[in-house]
Amino acid sequence: MILVGQFDSPFTRRIGVVLHSYGRPFTRDTRSIFGDGEAISQINPLTRIPALILDDGTVLIDSGAICEYLDERVGPARALMPDSGLVRRAMLQDIALIEGTLEKVIAVVYERFFHAPDQISTAWLSRCLGQIDKGLAALESRCGPTWFHGPAFSHVDVLMACAIGYIRLRLPEVFDDTARPRLAALAARCEALPAFIAARISPNETMPTSS
Amino acid sequence: MILVGQFDSPFTRRIGVVLHSYGRPFTRDTRSIFGDGEAISQINPLTRIPALILDDGTVLIDSGAICEYLDERVGPARALMPDSGLVRRAMLQDIALIEGTLEKVIAVVYERFFHAPDQISTAWLSRCLGQIDKGLAALESRCGPTWFHGPAFSHVDVLMACAIGYIRLRLPEVFDDTARPRLAALAARCEALPAFIAARISPNETMPTSS
Repeated sequence: MILVGQFDSPFTRRIGVVLHSYGRPFTRDTRSIFGDGEAISQINPLTRIPALILDDGTVLIDSGAICEYLDERVGPARALMPDSGLVRRAMLQDIALIEGTLEKVIAVVYERFFHAPDQISTAWLSRCLGQIDKGLAALESRCGPTWFHGPAFSHVDVLMACAIGYIRLRLPEVFDDTARPRLAALAARCEALPAFIAARISPNETMPTSS
Repeated sequence: MILVGQFDSPFTRRIGVVLHSYGRPFTRDTRSIFGDGEAISQINPLTRIPALILDDGTVLIDSGAICEYLDERVGPARALMPDSGLVRRAMLQDIALIEGTLEKVIAVVYERFFHAPDQISTAWLSRCLGQIDKGLAALESRCGPTWFHGPAFSHVDVLMACAIGYIRLRLPEVFDDTARPRLAALAARCEALPAFIAARISPNETMPTSS
């Protein structure tokens, strides 16, 4: 399998962590959606990452859909989320809240990246920043003392820690460790795991890459 | 159940159509994420729609997660997507492509809504418009002659038709019926169904509402 995308995309790193967690061997295509947009659009017409190219050439896009595929392959005993039922329902809600918060973080990063200072919409920025703050507050209050959801490490932990890593890299001013102690502790716990260490953001993966 | 959101959001309308398709009774809360942002943020901290409030007060967010919940409740025989396997995998890919295209359409709508003409980033706009065009071209080539995916009406059809309805309302210049004949025919077929007619966009639901 080939994982397409750079790890400074939280969604790409999420898949890298899951592949390492499941012990699935893979190679990487770290071309950029900016510098190599034409090549990436041959893989995903939307020029977005991550994409996972299976051994038969099938291309999967969307980190949630890719996780579902990997869960089905690894089987319910080892999957990082149940395949049905109440716990899955609740975890999907946590994931929706993380993804929604991340989308707003990315919106702020892109607003600043694509606009000169006097072109930036302060109304849009302040709307997004307010949504990010409320999203992180809700996540802090939902986060458990060891893992985010219940007694075991899950997809929620993977995405939450990748999101915090992205926020610290791109928009650190919105994440205050003292105001979000559970999330900060969760991130530290996750980043110490072998699967996270194996999917660290390397210094040359530093362009905004999630558009 | 209460469906929160206005039908000019393609994701809210998607849930309205699915609820009607499954014959699930519901009421609506059509307050706006702009005009009534504070009230909506009490329901979803991200101030986003749709949200579905269940009879026990549980709030579900994210249209994909809401569809999964409704599918589980209605059971595999009537669900608009299988709960596992290859057909589900392929449908989730179609859905990812539609959602990715829609996100870029919404990005263009918001860029124009939140910026004065001389503040608009032409680089961002042209990037998004290129992604929209490639996304729609890929969707046109994947769309089947009757329904989008396979012989039966599915979640892919619901989301695709809601997406086309949104594009025609907000960014009609990117959708040319003659260039996308299969998608245009699919939209016409869907819009004639009772579940779509019951979830038409009313004239007073005309604010951008998906942020």
